[in-house]
Amino acid sequence: MNYLSYIPVFDHLARSEQERLSQASFIRKFRKNEILHNGSQDCTGLVLVLSGQLRVFTISEEGREITMYRLFERDLCLFSASCIIHSIQFDMTVSAEKDAEVLMIPSEAYKSVMEVSAPLANYTNEVMASRFSDVMWLIDQILWKSFDKRLAGFLLEEMDIEETDTLRITHEAIGNHLGNPREVVTRMLKYFVNENLISLSRGTIEIKDRGGLQKIAGK
Amino acid sequence: MNYLSYIPVFDHLARSEQERLSQASFIRKFRKNEILHNGSQDCTGLVLVLSGQLRVFTISEEGREITMYRLFERDLCLFSASCIIHSIQFDMTVSAEKDAEVLMIPSEAYKSVMEVSAPLANYTNEVMASRFSDVMWLIDQILWKSFDKRLAGFLLEEMDIEETDTLRITHEAIGNHLGNPREVVTRMLKYFVNENLISLSRGTIEIKDRGGLQKIAGK
Repeated sequence: MNYLSYIPVFDHLARSEQERLSQASFIRKFRKNEILHNGSQDCTGLVLVLSGQLRVFTISEEGREITMYRLFERDLCLFSASCIIHSIQFDMTVSAEKDAEVLMIPSEAYKSVMEVSAPLANYTNEVMASRFSDVMWLIDQILWKSFDKRLAGFLLEEMDIEETDTLRITHEAIGNHLGNPREVVTRMLKYFVNENLISLSRGTIEIKDRGGLQKIAGK
Repeated sequence: MNYLSYIPVFDHLARSEQERLSQASFIRKFRKNEILHNGSQDCTGLVLVLSGQLRVFTISEEGREITMYRLFERDLCLFSASCIIHSIQFDMTVSAEKDAEVLMIPSEAYKSVMEVSAPLANYTNEVMASRFSDVMWLIDQILWKSFDKRLAGFLLEEMDIEETDTLRITHEAIGNHLGNPREVVTRMLKYFVNENLISLSRGTIEIKDRGGLQKIAGK
Protein backbone atom coordinates (compact mmCIF):
# COMPACT_ATOMS: atom_id res chain seq x y z
CA MET A 1 0.00 0.00 0.00
CA ASN A 2 1.23 3.48 -0.84
CA TYR A 3 0.66 5.58 2.26
CA LEU A 4 1.32 8.74 0.26
CA SER A 5 -2.26 8.41 -0.95
CA TYR A 6 -3.20 9.69 2.53
CA ILE A 7 -2.28 13.05 0.99
CA PRO A 8 -5.59 13.98 -0.65
CA VAL A 9 -3.98 15.59 -3.72
CA PHE A 10 -1.58 12.71 -4.39
CA ASP A 11 -3.74 11.49 -7.29
CA HIS A 12 -3.49 14.93 -8.89
CA LEU A 13 0.29 14.86 -9.11
CA ALA A 14 2.12 13.94 -12.28
CA ARG A 15 3.39 10.35 -12.42
CA SER A 16 7.02 11.52 -12.16
CA GLU A 17 6.17 13.63 -9.10
CA GLN A 18 4.42 10.70 -7.41
CA GLU A 19 7.48 8.56 -8.04
CA ARG A 20 9.90 11.13 -6.71
CA LEU A 21 7.97 11.25 -3.42
CA SER A 22 7.49 7.48 -3.21
CA GLN A 23 11.14 6.66 -3.82
CA ALA A 24 12.36 9.14 -1.20
CA SER A 25 9.88 8.25 1.57
CA PHE A 26 10.40 5.58 4.22
CA ILE A 27 8.65 4.25 7.30
CA ARG A 28 9.93 4.82 10.83
CA LYS A 29 8.69 3.76 14.23
CA PHE A 30 8.93 5.81 17.39
CA ARG A 31 8.39 4.74 20.97
CA LYS A 32 6.19 6.74 23.32
CA ASN A 33 7.98 9.92 24.48
CA GLU A 34 10.65 9.64 21.80
CA ILE A 35 11.53 12.96 20.13
CA LEU A 36 10.95 12.89 16.35
CA HIS A 37 12.08 16.41 15.72
CA ASN A 38 13.89 18.89 17.89
CA GLY A 39 13.09 22.53 17.17
CA SER A 40 16.67 23.64 16.78
CA GLN A 41 17.82 20.66 14.72
CA ASP A 42 18.17 20.51 10.98
CA CYS A 43 15.28 19.81 8.69
CA THR A 44 13.94 16.36 9.61
CA GLY A 45 11.44 16.05 6.77
CA LEU A 46 7.66 15.92 6.63
CA VAL A 47 6.02 13.39 8.89
CA LEU A 48 2.84 11.62 7.84
CA VAL A 49 1.24 9.81 10.78
CA LEU A 50 0.29 6.20 9.97
CA SER A 51 -0.66 5.18 13.51
CA GLY A 52 -0.25 6.48 17.04
CA GLN A 53 -0.24 10.08 18.19
CA LEU A 54 2.25 12.96 18.03
CA ARG A 55 2.51 16.08 20.15
CA VAL A 56 3.81 19.33 18.70
CA PHE A 57 4.99 21.85 21.27
CA THR A 58 7.30 24.77 21.92
CA ILE A 59 9.79 25.20 24.73
CA SER A 60 10.63 28.52 26.39
CA GLU A 61 14.19 29.60 27.16
CA GLU A 62 13.56 28.47 30.73
CA GLY A 63 12.49 25.01 29.55
CA ARG A 64 8.74 25.38 30.05
CA GLU A 65 6.56 23.68 27.43
CA ILE A 66 3.18 24.29 25.88
CA THR A 67 1.35 21.98 23.49
CA MET A 68 0.41 23.63 20.20
CA TYR A 69 -1.62 20.73 18.83
CA ARG A 70 -1.71 16.95 18.44
CA LEU A 71 -1.42 14.93 15.24
CA PHE A 72 -3.33 11.73 14.61
CA GLU A 73 -3.54 9.12 11.87
CA ARG A 74 -3.34 10.65 8.36
CA ASP A 75 -2.17 14.04 9.69
CA LEU A 76 0.85 15.66 8.09
CA CYS A 77 3.45 17.50 10.16
CA LEU A 78 4.93 20.47 8.31
CA PHE A 79 7.03 22.05 11.00
CA SER A 80 9.46 19.17 11.16
CA ALA A 81 10.42 20.36 7.67
CA SER A 82 10.36 24.08 8.26
CA CYS A 83 13.29 24.52 5.86
CA ILE A 84 10.93 23.98 2.94
CA ILE A 85 9.33 27.36 3.68
CA HIS A 86 11.78 30.21 4.28
CA SER A 87 9.40 32.41 6.24
CA ILE A 88 8.92 29.96 9.12
CA GLN A 89 10.89 31.68 11.86
CA PHE A 90 9.99 29.57 14.86
CA ASP A 91 10.87 26.21 16.33
CA MET A 92 8.50 23.41 17.16
CA THR A 93 9.43 20.18 18.85
CA VAL A 94 7.62 16.96 17.91
CA SER A 95 7.41 13.91 20.14
CA ALA A 96 5.54 10.62 20.05
CA GLU A 97 2.75 10.88 22.62
CA LYS A 98 1.95 7.23 21.97
CA ASP A 99 3.95 4.58 20.10
CA ALA A 100 3.77 5.78 16.51
CA GLU A 101 4.48 4.64 13.00
CA VAL A 102 5.12 7.41 10.50
CA LEU A 103 6.05 7.91 6.89
CA MET A 104 9.04 10.24 6.63
CA ILE A 105 9.03 12.36 3.48
CA PRO A 106 12.44 13.98 3.05
CA SER A 107 12.28 17.77 2.74
CA GLU A 108 14.22 17.97 -0.52
CA ALA A 109 11.86 15.63 -2.36
CA TYR A 110 8.74 17.34 -1.03
CA LYS A 111 10.08 20.81 -1.75
CA SER A 112 11.12 19.98 -5.32
CA VAL A 113 7.61 18.73 -6.12
CA MET A 114 5.83 21.55 -4.26
CA GLU A 115 7.77 24.19 -6.18
CA VAL A 116 6.32 23.08 -9.50
CA SER A 117 2.99 21.55 -8.44
CA ALA A 118 0.07 23.91 -7.80
CA PRO A 119 -2.01 21.09 -6.21
CA LEU A 120 0.71 20.19 -3.68
CA ALA A 121 1.48 23.85 -2.93
CA ASN A 122 -2.21 24.56 -2.36
CA TYR A 123 -2.55 21.47 -0.18
CA THR A 124 0.46 22.59 1.89
CA ASN A 125 -1.30 25.91 2.26
CA GLU A 126 -4.37 24.19 3.63
CA VAL A 127 -2.33 22.17 6.11
CA MET A 128 -0.57 25.29 7.35
CA ALA A 129 -3.87 27.17 7.63
CA SER A 130 -5.29 24.33 9.67
CA ARG A 131 -2.36 24.40 12.14
CA PHE A 132 -2.57 28.20 12.19
CA SER A 133 -6.22 27.85 13.21
CA ASP A 134 -5.24 25.51 16.06
CA VAL A 135 -2.71 28.05 17.28
CA MET A 136 -5.20 30.93 17.05
CA TRP A 137 -7.62 28.88 19.14
CA LEU A 138 -4.83 28.41 21.67
CA ILE A 139 -4.16 32.17 21.83
CA ASP A 140 -7.83 32.72 22.47
CA GLN A 141 -7.71 30.18 25.30
CA ILE A 142 -4.59 31.61 26.91
CA LEU A 143 -5.69 35.21 26.67
CA TRP A 144 -9.33 35.17 27.53
CA LYS A 145 -10.05 31.90 29.31
CA SER A 146 -9.16 31.46 32.95
CA PHE A 147 -7.12 28.45 33.99
CA ASP A 148 -10.03 26.50 35.49
CA LYS A 149 -11.80 26.55 32.10
CA ARG A 150 -8.67 25.48 30.24
CA LEU A 151 -7.92 22.65 32.67
CA ALA A 152 -11.51 21.35 32.61
CA GLY A 153 -11.45 21.49 28.80
CA PHE A 154 -8.14 19.64 28.71
CA LEU A 155 -9.42 16.81 30.97
CA LEU A 156 -12.53 16.40 28.82
CA GLU A 157 -10.44 16.32 25.63
CA GLU A 158 -8.13 13.70 27.13
CA MET A 159 -11.13 11.55 28.13
CA ASP A 160 -12.31 11.64 24.53
CA ILE A 161 -8.91 10.85 23.01
CA GLU A 162 -8.15 8.04 25.49
CA GLU A 163 -11.76 6.83 25.70
CA THR A 164 -11.58 6.39 29.45
CA ASP A 165 -12.70 8.06 32.70
CA THR A 166 -9.37 7.32 34.37
CA LEU A 167 -6.47 9.31 32.98
CA ARG A 168 -2.89 8.21 33.62
CA ILE A 169 -1.06 11.51 33.46
CA THR A 170 1.20 13.45 35.81
CA HIS A 171 0.52 17.01 36.94
CA GLU A 172 3.79 18.01 35.33
CA ALA A 173 2.71 16.59 31.97
CA ILE A 174 -0.54 18.56 32.17
CA GLY A 175 1.48 21.68 32.97
CA ASN A 176 3.59 21.02 29.88
CA HIS A 177 0.47 20.82 27.75
CA LEU A 178 -1.07 24.00 29.10
CA GLY A 179 2.03 26.10 29.64
CA ASN A 180 1.66 26.35 33.42
CA PRO A 181 3.96 25.30 36.27
CA ARG A 182 3.15 21.99 37.98
CA GLU A 183 2.14 23.70 41.24
CA VAL A 184 -0.61 25.64 39.49
CA VAL A 185 -1.99 22.42 38.00
CA THR A 186 -1.93 20.61 41.35
CA ARG A 187 -3.71 23.47 43.09
CA MET A 188 -6.53 23.57 40.53
CA LEU A 189 -6.90 19.77 40.49
CA LYS A 190 -7.33 19.86 44.27
CA TYR A 191 -10.02 22.46 43.82
CA PHE A 192 -11.76 20.12 41.34
CA VAL A 193 -11.51 17.31 43.95
CA ASN A 194 -13.20 19.53 46.54
CA GLU A 195 -15.97 20.22 44.05
CA ASN A 196 -16.42 16.45 43.56
CA LEU A 197 -15.59 16.71 39.87
CA ILE A 198 -12.61 14.35 39.94
CA SER A 199 -10.68 12.14 42.32
CA LEU A 200 -6.92 11.80 42.48
CA SER A 201 -4.70 8.86 43.27
CA ARG A 202 -1.06 8.13 42.54
CA GLY A 203 -0.52 8.84 38.85
CA THR A 204 -4.20 8.87 37.87
CA ILE A 205 -7.07 11.31 37.64
CA GLU A 206 -10.56 9.88 37.68
CA ILE A 207 -13.33 11.98 36.18
CA LYS A 208 -16.44 11.73 38.37
CA ASP A 209 -18.67 14.50 37.07
CA ARG A 210 -18.38 15.03 33.35
CA GLY A 211 -21.31 17.45 33.24
CA GLY A 212 -19.74 19.58 35.96
CA LEU A 213 -16.47 19.81 34.05
CA GLN A 214 -18.37 20.70 30.89
CA LYS A 215 -20.10 23.53 32.74
CA ILE A 216 -16.74 24.93 33.89
CA ALA A 217 -15.21 24.49 30.45
CA GLY A 218 -18.10 26.50 29.05
CA LYS A 219 -19.16 23.77 26.64
CA MET B 1 2.31 51.69 -12.59
CA ASN B 2 1.10 48.17 -11.87
CA TYR B 3 1.17 47.77 -8.12
CA LEU B 4 0.70 44.02 -8.48
CA SER B 5 4.42 43.86 -9.21
CA TYR B 6 4.84 44.39 -5.45
CA ILE B 7 4.02 40.67 -5.37
CA PRO B 8 7.48 39.19 -5.94
CA VAL B 9 6.26 36.30 -8.10
CA PHE B 10 4.06 38.45 -10.33
CA ASP B 11 6.61 38.28 -13.15
CA HIS B 12 6.50 34.48 -12.98
CA LEU B 13 2.78 34.30 -13.71
CA ALA B 14 1.41 33.58 -17.17
CA ARG B 15 0.28 36.67 -19.12
CA SER B 16 -3.37 35.63 -18.83
CA GLU B 17 -3.02 35.21 -15.06
CA GLN B 18 -1.42 38.63 -14.72
CA GLU B 19 -4.28 40.15 -16.66
CA ARG B 20 -6.93 38.39 -14.63
CA LEU B 21 -5.47 39.87 -11.43
CA SER B 22 -4.91 43.31 -12.94
CA GLN B 23 -8.41 43.64 -14.33
CA ALA B 24 -10.05 42.62 -11.05
CA SER B 25 -7.94 44.78 -8.70
CA PHE B 26 -8.72 48.34 -7.69
CA ILE B 27 -7.35 51.02 -5.37
CA ARG B 28 -9.13 52.11 -2.20
CA LYS B 29 -8.32 54.67 0.46
CA PHE B 30 -9.05 54.29 4.15
CA ARG B 31 -8.96 56.92 6.86
CA LYS B 32 -7.16 56.32 10.13
CA ASN B 33 -9.21 53.98 12.39
CA GLU B 34 -11.48 52.89 9.55
CA ILE B 35 -12.22 49.16 9.49
CA LEU B 36 -11.14 47.48 6.24
CA HIS B 37 -12.28 44.03 7.16
CA ASN B 38 -14.46 42.78 9.97
CA GLY B 39 -13.67 39.25 11.12
CA SER B 40 -17.21 37.97 10.83
CA GLN B 41 -17.96 39.62 7.49
CA ASP B 42 -17.80 38.04 4.09
CA CYS B 43 -14.60 37.67 2.17
CA THR B 44 -13.29 41.19 1.54
CA GLY B 45 -10.42 40.22 -0.73
CA LEU B 46 -6.66 40.41 -0.42
CA VAL B 47 -5.27 43.75 0.60
CA LEU B 48 -1.90 44.93 -0.71
CA VAL B 49 -0.67 47.95 1.24
CA LEU B 50 0.49 50.81 -1.02
CA SER B 51 0.99 53.38 1.73
CA GLY B 52 0.07 53.86 5.38
CA GLN B 53 -0.22 51.21 8.05
CA LEU B 54 -2.75 48.50 8.91
CA ARG B 55 -3.40 46.71 12.17
CA VAL B 56 -4.58 43.10 12.24
CA PHE B 57 -6.19 42.03 15.50
CA THR B 58 -8.66 39.66 17.11
CA ILE B 59 -11.53 40.49 19.43
CA SER B 60 -12.68 38.30 22.32
CA GLU B 61 -16.34 37.59 23.03
CA GLU B 62 -16.17 40.28 25.72
CA GLY B 63 -14.83 42.81 23.22
CA ARG B 64 -11.19 42.84 24.32
CA GLU B 65 -8.63 43.20 21.54
CA ILE B 66 -5.08 42.06 20.91
CA THR B 67 -2.88 43.07 17.99
CA MET B 68 -1.55 40.10 16.00
CA TYR B 69 0.74 42.14 13.73
CA ARG B 70 0.98 45.30 11.65
CA LEU B 71 1.18 45.58 7.88
CA PHE B 72 3.27 48.20 6.10
CA GLU B 73 3.94 49.24 2.51
CA ARG B 74 4.16 46.25 0.12
CA ASP B 75 2.73 43.83 2.71
CA LEU B 76 -0.10 41.55 1.65
CA CYS B 77 -3.02 40.78 3.97
CA LEU B 78 -4.33 37.24 3.52
CA PHE B 79 -6.83 37.03 6.33
CA SER B 80 -9.17 39.58 4.80
CA ALA B 81 -9.68 36.86 2.17
CA SER B 82 -9.81 33.84 4.42
CA CYS B 83 -12.40 32.25 2.12
CA ILE B 84 -9.64 31.46 -0.37
CA ILE B 85 -8.28 28.87 2.07
CA HIS B 86 -10.88 26.55 3.58
CA SER B 87 -8.87 25.57 6.63
CA ILE B 88 -8.69 29.09 8.08
CA GLN B 89 -11.05 28.77 11.03
CA PHE B 90 -10.51 32.06 12.80
CA ASP B 91 -11.48 35.68 12.40
CA MET B 92 -9.14 38.61 12.15
CA THR B 93 -10.20 42.25 12.01
CA VAL B 94 -8.17 44.71 9.94
CA SER B 95 -8.19 48.46 10.51
CA ALA B 96 -6.20 51.40 9.16
CA GLU B 97 -3.82 52.45 11.91
CA LYS B 98 -2.81 55.41 9.75
CA ASP B 99 -4.45 56.82 6.62
CA ALA B 100 -3.82 54.10 4.07
CA GLU B 101 -4.02 53.46 0.36
CA VAL B 102 -4.40 49.82 -0.62
CA LEU B 103 -4.85 47.68 -3.68
CA MET B 104 -7.85 45.38 -3.25
CA ILE B 105 -7.48 42.04 -5.03
CA PRO B 106 -10.86 40.29 -5.11
CA SER B 107 -10.77 36.80 -3.59
CA GLU B 108 -12.26 35.06 -6.62
CA ALA B 109 -9.61 36.34 -9.01
CA TYR B 110 -6.74 35.56 -6.63
CA LYS B 111 -8.09 32.11 -5.84
CA SER B 112 -8.62 31.14 -9.48
CA VAL B 113 -4.99 32.01 -10.28
CA MET B 114 -3.57 30.44 -7.12
CA GLU B 115 -5.31 27.14 -7.84
CA VAL B 116 -3.40 26.64 -11.07
CA SER B 117 -0.19 28.58 -10.39
CA ALA B 118 2.53 26.89 -8.35
CA PRO B 119 4.47 30.19 -8.00
CA LEU B 120 1.46 32.08 -6.57
CA ALA B 121 0.47 29.16 -4.31
CA ASN B 122 4.04 28.92 -2.98
CA TYR B 123 4.18 32.68 -2.47
CA THR B 124 0.89 32.55 -0.54
CA ASN B 125 2.47 29.82 1.57
CA GLU B 126 5.40 32.10 2.37
CA VAL B 127 3.10 34.97 3.35
CA MET B 128 1.09 32.71 5.64
CA ALA B 129 4.25 31.28 7.20
CA SER B 130 5.49 34.80 7.85
CA ARG B 131 2.26 35.77 9.67
CA PHE B 132 2.34 32.45 11.49
CA SER B 133 5.83 33.34 12.71
CA ASP B 134 4.55 36.71 13.99
CA VAL B 135 1.79 34.95 15.90
CA MET B 136 4.20 32.37 17.37
CA TRP B 137 6.37 35.25 18.57
CA LEU B 138 3.28 36.73 20.19
CA ILE B 139 2.47 33.46 21.99
CA ASP B 140 6.01 33.40 23.29
CA GLN B 141 5.59 36.95 24.58
CA ILE B 142 2.24 36.32 26.23
CA LEU B 143 3.24 33.06 27.84
CA TRP B 144 6.74 33.61 29.04
CA LYS B 145 7.31 37.37 29.21
CA SER B 146 5.94 39.40 32.09
CA PHE B 147 3.85 42.47 31.34
CA ASP B 148 6.57 45.01 32.18
CA LYS B 149 8.78 43.49 29.46
CA ARG B 150 5.99 43.45 26.91
CA LEU B 151 4.97 47.05 27.64
CA ALA B 152 8.56 48.33 27.49
CA GLY B 153 9.04 46.46 24.20
CA PHE B 154 5.83 47.93 22.82
CA LEU B 155 6.83 51.52 23.69
CA LEU B 156 10.23 51.04 22.02
CA GLU B 157 8.61 49.55 18.90
CA GLU B 158 6.18 52.47 18.69
CA MET B 159 9.04 54.97 19.00
CA ASP B 160 10.73 53.30 16.05
CA ILE B 161 7.61 53.15 13.87
CA GLU B 162 6.59 56.75 14.66
CA GLU B 163 10.15 58.07 14.78
CA THR B 164 9.44 60.18 17.85
CA ASP B 165 10.06 60.25 21.60
CA THR B 166 6.55 61.51 22.29
CA LEU B 167 3.82 58.99 21.58
CA ARG B 168 0.23 60.12 21.16
CA ILE B 169 -1.66 57.02 22.28
CA THR B 170 -4.26 56.29 24.94
CA HIS B 171 -3.83 53.67 27.65
CA GLU B 172 -6.87 51.90 26.26
CA ALA B 173 -5.27 51.67 22.78
CA ILE B 174 -2.14 50.15 24.32
CA GLY B 175 -4.33 47.66 26.18
CA ASN B 176 -5.96 46.74 22.86
CA HIS B 177 -2.57 46.06 21.33
CA LEU B 178 -1.32 43.94 24.18
CA GLY B 179 -4.51 42.19 25.23
CA ASN B 180 -4.71 43.72 28.70
CA PRO B 181 -7.35 45.87 30.42
CA ARG B 182 -6.70 49.64 30.48
CA GLU B 183 -6.21 49.65 34.28
CA VAL B 184 -3.28 47.23 34.01
CA VAL B 185 -1.62 49.46 31.41
CA THR B 186 -2.12 52.61 33.51
CA ARG B 187 -0.68 50.95 36.59
CA MET B 188 2.47 49.80 34.78
CA LEU B 189 2.94 53.17 33.03
CA LYS B 190 2.82 54.86 36.47
CA TYR B 191 5.50 52.44 37.64
CA PHE B 192 7.62 53.47 34.62
CA VAL B 193 7.08 57.14 35.58
CA ASN B 194 8.33 56.46 39.10
CA GLU B 195 11.41 54.82 37.60
CA ASN B 196 12.02 57.97 35.50
CA LEU B 197 11.70 55.98 32.28
CA ILE B 198 8.81 57.99 30.84
CA SER B 199 6.62 60.95 31.66
CA LEU B 200 2.88 61.16 31.12
CA SER B 201 0.67 64.04 30.15
CA ARG B 202 -2.83 64.22 28.69
CA GLY B 203 -2.87 61.85 25.72
CA THR B 204 0.90 61.53 25.36
CA ILE B 205 3.72 59.38 26.68
CA GLU B 206 7.21 60.83 26.52
CA ILE B 207 10.10 58.39 26.57
CA LYS B 208 12.88 59.74 28.78
CA ASP B 209 15.20 56.77 29.21
CA ARG B 210 15.42 54.58 26.15
CA GLY B 211 18.27 52.50 27.57
CA GLY B 212 16.28 51.79 30.73
CA LEU B 213 13.31 50.57 28.70
CA GLN B 214 15.60 48.40 26.60
CA LYS B 215 16.98 46.84 29.76
CA ILE B 216 13.46 45.98 30.97
CA ALA B 217 12.44 44.72 27.53
CA GLY B 218 15.44 42.41 27.63
CA LYS B 219 16.93 43.77 24.41
